[in-house]
Amino acid sequence: MWIRNAWYVAAWSHEVANEGLLARTIMNDPLVLYRIGNGSVVAMEDRCCHRLAPLSLGRREGDDLRCMYHGLKFGPDGRCNEIPGQTTIPAKAVVRGYPVVERGSWVWVWMGEAARADVSQIPETIATTDRDWNIQTGCLDYSANYQLINDNLLDLSHLAFVHERTLGKGVPQWATERPTITRLERGVRFQRWFRRRGPSHYFGEPGDVFDTWNSYDFLVPGLFIQRPAWFPPGTAERYDGQAPTEEPLFVRCDDQAVIPVTEKTSRYFYSAGGRSKDASPELAGEIFRFTEVAFHEDKAIIEAQQKVIAQDPGRQMVSLSMDGGPTLFRGIVRELIAAETSTTGGAEVARAG
Amino acid sequence: MWIRNAWYVAAWSHEVANEGLLARTIMNDPLVLYRIGNGSVVAMEDRCCHRLAPLSLGRREGDDLRCMYHGLKFGPDGRCNEIPGQTTIPAKAVVRGYPVVERGSWVWVWMGEAARADVSQIPETIATTDRDWNIQTGCLDYSANYQLINDNLLDLSHLAFVHERTLGKGVPQWATERPTITRLERGVRFQRWFRRRGPSHYFGEPGDVFDTWNSYDFLVPGLFIQRPAWFPPGTAERYDGQAPTEEPLFVRCDDQAVIPVTEKTSRYFYSAGGRSKDASPELAGEIFRFTEVAFHEDKAIIEAQQKVIAQDPGRQMVSLSMDGGPTLFRGIVRELIAAETSTTGGAEVARAG
Amino acid sequence: MWIRNAWYVAAWSHEVANEGLLARTIMNDPLVLYRIGNGSVVAMEDRCCHRLAPLSLGRREGDDLRCMYHGLKFGPDGRCNEIPGQTTIPAKAVVRGYPVVERGSWVWVWMGEAARADVSQIPETIATTDRDWNIQTGCLDYSANYQLINDNLLDLSHLAFVHERTLGKGVPQWATERPTITRLERGVRFQRWFRRRGPSHYFGEPGDVFDTWNSYDFLVPGLFIQRPAWFPPGTAERYDGQAPTEEPLFVRCDDQAVIPVTEKTSRYFYSAGGRSKDASPELAGEIFRFTEVAFHEDKAIIEAQQKVIAQDPGRQMVSLSMDGGPTLFRGIVRELIAAETSTTGGAEVARAG
Repeated sequence: MWIRNAWYVAAWSHEVANEGLLARTIMNDPLVLYRIGNGSVVAMEDRCCHRLAPLSLGRREGDDLRCMYHGLKFGPDGRCNEIPGQTTIPAKAVVRGYPVVERGSWVWVWMGEAARADVSQIPETIATTDRDWNIQTGCLDYSANYQLINDNLLDLSHLAFVHERTLGKGVPQWATERPTITRLERGVRFQRWFRRRGPSHYFGEPGDVFDTWNSYDFLVPGLFIQRPAWFPPGTAERYDGQAPTEEPLFVRCDDQAVIPVTEKTSRYFYSAGGRSKDASPELAGEIFRFTEVAFHEDKAIIEAQQKVIAQDPGRQMVSLSMDGGPTLFRGIVRELIAAETSTTGGAEVARAG
Repeated sequence: MWIRNAWYVAAWSHEVANEGLLARTIMNDPLVLYRIGNGSVVAMEDRCCHRLAPLSLGRREGDDLRCMYHGLKFGPDGRCNEIPGQTTIPAKAVVRGYPVVERGSWVWVWMGEAARADVSQIPETIATTDRDWNIQTGCLDYSANYQLINDNLLDLSHLAFVHERTLGKGVPQWATERPTITRLERGVRFQRWFRRRGPSHYFGEPGDVFDTWNSYDFLVPGLFIQRPAWFPPGTAERYDGQAPTEEPLFVRCDDQAVIPVTEKTSRYFYSAGGRSKDASPELAGEIFRFTEVAFHEDKAIIEAQQKVIAQDPGRQMVSLSMDGGPTLFRGIVRELIAAETSTTGGAEVARAG
Repeated sequence: MWIRNAWYVAAWSHEVANEGLLARTIMNDPLVLYRIGNGSVVAMEDRCCHRLAPLSLGRREGDDLRCMYHGLKFGPDGRCNEIPGQTTIPAKAVVRGYPVVERGSWVWVWMGEAARADVSQIPETIATTDRDWNIQTGCLDYSANYQLINDNLLDLSHLAFVHERTLGKGVPQWATERPTITRLERGVRFQRWFRRRGPSHYFGEPGDVFDTWNSYDFLVPGLFIQRPAWFPPGTAERYDGQAPTEEPLFVRCDDQAVIPVTEKTSRYFYSAGGRSKDASPELAGEIFRFTEVAFHEDKAIIEAQQKVIAQDPGRQMVSLSMDGGPTLFRGIVRELIAAETSTTGGAEVARAG
């Protein structure tokens, strides 16, 4: 059902403070995150090995974490290093530790076999501190399976309907023109020009006309990375469907991560904004708020879809030409899951860690 | 569990306006209802065939209905007639349509094989516009299986207990005298005289004495149709248990429909009132409100009963002499379900439509 | 999963008034309790044998109880003695009756085979009317399996962590020193001295030092009976680990009962206070309120633990030296359940009663 050997966004970096403990669930695994003295983030199983109480209700003691049910203390590696009233620490007294990396303002956790954790799989995303960009960040909880959110992001034709008054306003091409779809090693790339489209809420004046280059990657396990660029009308013609190489009038940016929490719930992390040279912090804030309205439109339709599916879980979807992205990506996910479970010991690793 | 080849009340006619979309669920089937230009009501599956989003969140376009997730447009027959960015419409791009009839202020939907839809099975009920009657209409949602509500209506001995302060007040005969029960083709008829009973809340003065002819039919799938009639004392004697043929002093009317929504929830539609010659609109309103209080008494005991049953679903009921109606009707329901599933293809039709 | 042949606390005596009906659930059995004319308490199945409506929504008629759905009347023995409109009472028209005893302000119900009900199994607990003690009483509902609450009470090392600011304040010995554990016929006894400990919230002044004798029994099915006693420092030394025989400075008392309601919910009855000679009613009230704060600390960690367990129900606990009590008691429970189900007919009795 889920790819285990992948980096999942567990939090925004600023959510993991120097003090305190943060509880998160990813693919049914309870996690506790905290920041140790050297500034790095630790993620471990949020379940004491003793009586299975959550460590996130525990107490920080330096870089260690003490369970506040019966007082077992764990190091940042998950190994128990103190048991009240007992001198010998059994080898089994350990909670699972997860590899963690901070990149681009996200805390990434590797949910599969630690030995296979490969930092090169983390794509470049924009940090809140990046001076070339102004962005704002947010998060939404979904009562829906993550795959339905992925599907949504893998077929932007819905912008013309779900977002007809927001992101899709004045751009019917979202539904009527198909992008070029390219398979990447662990994802899908979407590319297309929209010609002679109108202004956006946040760029252009009434009557303005632009060509826009709409390119984004959607990567395993559920990462949406988009940098749409605005050009004078006629630019698309000159590039004849190819990627532009000249300086755009305006570039916005969107980084999003879809996280399976349980089978029926998900978490959606996102940032939105634009290049510093195009978008002041105020304009970036406007882009962000405008986009967040659209995310609530998505949430409404996807959660309604989830309820309908739950009424008859075996019901098949009818495949259409607009489904190229979702179909290709669901295939990639299936392949990766199959590869994990066929590896010797893979299935067990996925559970026991 | 459910009879599919039957007419189910989906709504009061006035609930389906000229604009807008109405979402209903019957036997786990999600339905969307709307009224097209010629005034007739359309009912179709509330689940787009493409990604299974609910069409009731869609948009009316003339007589068509557009899914507002990815823009598929459907005609009132359920066939997709437009797919954005795609010229060929696959044969599978269709949602199930349901036969619909409006009769007596109710919107009836045939939930089984369309070819077997038989309008003659719809019993006569009183329309809100009928000049011979004054009625008011209402609706209650139940957290209980529909069968428990049917049982309740098939054994009115409960009036002496559940409704001891409302409908059953002063008429202990409800519990102590048994009606004559007759099997109809698709239901059960109950008939009896109550002799020398007192006045009702809405008819008669303190000290008055009446004979009442209490007759009602309970029909598949869960229709209660009652026209109790008041006569001077002694009338019952003259008719010796038979139906009266003379003009009554007063006639009230009750039409009710019990609708299975899911296995654990139901909807209950009802009207109550009296003949125009007996009951002014004001008096009909009083009858209705008085009756609706009693319906909340039923809801309290039935939902409590449902919770007890859920604690031990295998528990058997002890059958008593008062259970003639429920037992006979449950048998009819079982027969009809068995007949449906034994018919070639019947079971599949019931699901796939 | 549950011991049936045992006395379970269903209520505080004062909860069963002379009038009215009290609904309770124990081990998924719905019970209705009421007090009859001779002052004794009756407990029977809260489920009419006819249509399975709850009798607790019924009406007291003297010592009888009438179901207010269709009017069946039951005697305090559970036998139906009246059916409206029917003269013969079928032998099956009976609801299960449960043996009941009132002792020490608790209403005890025997949930298993009536023939095996043995009053000698009820331990001595303190009544609210006992002049030698001042106590107050309370009750908490848990969203957790009863076994997790039992475990909590069977290992008081948690006082040093869960209750570090309340019951465990200033007494780290709770975690670092192990009690002597003795198996009783149907339970476990815990005994130990704490030497040179500080004052409690409710006894002693800052700077005071005491030795305390901490002894409690934990009995099947989930009874905690504790009488901790305070002595001058040095007393423990003199008794060399044995129980003291001299008059203490102060004795508090705790009687608690853990009741399985469903697999996932429990009820926790408790009293707390002290000897009348040590604790005025005001001081007993202070002990009680202080203790109740600690019970909410337990509830927070145990309900959190239950949620973590529900995420992965097969997860094993790692056993430590502090688990002697829980492990021994879980074994006793398993033995007793196995003995019940191996007895001829035992399993059926457990269900059908």
